[in-house]
Amino acid sequence: MNIIVRRAEPSDYEGVWRIFTDESAYSGTLQMPFPSQETWRERMSKVEDGNTMLVACEGDTIVGNAGLHGFPGRARRAHAAGIGMSVPSEWQGKGVGTALMAAIVELADNWHGYARLELTVFTDNEAALALYRKFGFEVEGTLRAYAMRKGRLVDTYTMARLRQRAQPPA
Amino acid sequence: MNIIVRRAEPSDYEGVWRIFTDESAYSGTLQMPFPSQETWRERMSKVEDGNTMLVACEGDTIVGNAGLHGFPGRARRAHAAGIGMSVPSEWQGKGVGTALMAAIVELADNWHGYARLELTVFTDNEAALALYRKFGFEVEGTLRAYAMRKGRLVDTYTMARLRQRAQPPA
Repeated sequence: MNIIVRRAEPSDYEGVWRIFTDESAYSGTLQMPFPSQETWRERMSKVEDGNTMLVACEGDTIVGNAGLHGFPGRARRAHAAGIGMSVPSEWQGKGVGTALMAAIVELADNWHGYARLELTVFTDNEAALALYRKFGFEVEGTLRAYAMRKGRLVDTYTMARLRQRAQPPA
Repeated sequence: MNIIVRRAEPSDYEGVWRIFTDESAYSGTLQMPFPSQETWRERMSKVEDGNTMLVACEGDTIVGNAGLHGFPGRARRAHAAGIGMSVPSEWQGKGVGTALMAAIVELADNWHGYARLELTVFTDNEAALALYRKFGFEVEGTLRAYAMRKGRLVDTYTMARLRQRAQPPA
């Protein structure tokens, strides 16, 4: 298996839509069941300011996606960015999440130079938690009844990873 | 003193702009110094979907503002909303925050029927913390280096208030 991570292009919308037809992908994020191809086409035709979206590919198949989301209208949060990620169940446990997170962190640390990366994760999503911990994310709190999932209002952890920023020579 | 809380109208922009010329108002939120009247005029001329903005008035003077922000594109967070609020220093300790929060909570609980209200507050903002606790908000976590403030990256608490929602007859 040879997982390649690259920038998402508008023409990838069908592959990303397909990820979100997977129950584990939509239920583990804030997406809804019955995703719309048209909505994904629109969403990916014009990426919002401050957002970067990556896809993981095995051959021609899109097997995961990840986004890095800055806060462009918020000058006082210019040092921070949010992360979202999903890998459909059939591709979990194969290094896809690790490949995506390594790429996102490389982009965030060494090119954006963010000091703080943040994300939320459902408290029972052990695989995602293990991945995020591996990359240095720490739980900062538990957000109770944060989102609806399969008929219940469930908790998420809010996690963050801090990093010293590059400095000019002293 | 007679504090009246009412819906913000586009013509209130100058009064709201004036609030954010106060250091304690901009530093206690995520606003920047040197607020732009033109930006506030635009922002208040067309309120974003899912947002409600209120102002507190003493006579003709706007002495505080508060916003209730739903998450319109996020069906799985339809039970939740965020709150933002500010009262300039000269009007603090006079019941303005209490009047605004009472109005926001009345709107959120009894008309929107939200189950979860959430907000962030700088960890050293004792007056705001006391107000939020009075209305049943609890600290759910500490977000490290969350925002820039006077030259430092400072922490916020993430707080929430949960409430049982109205049910149809059994």
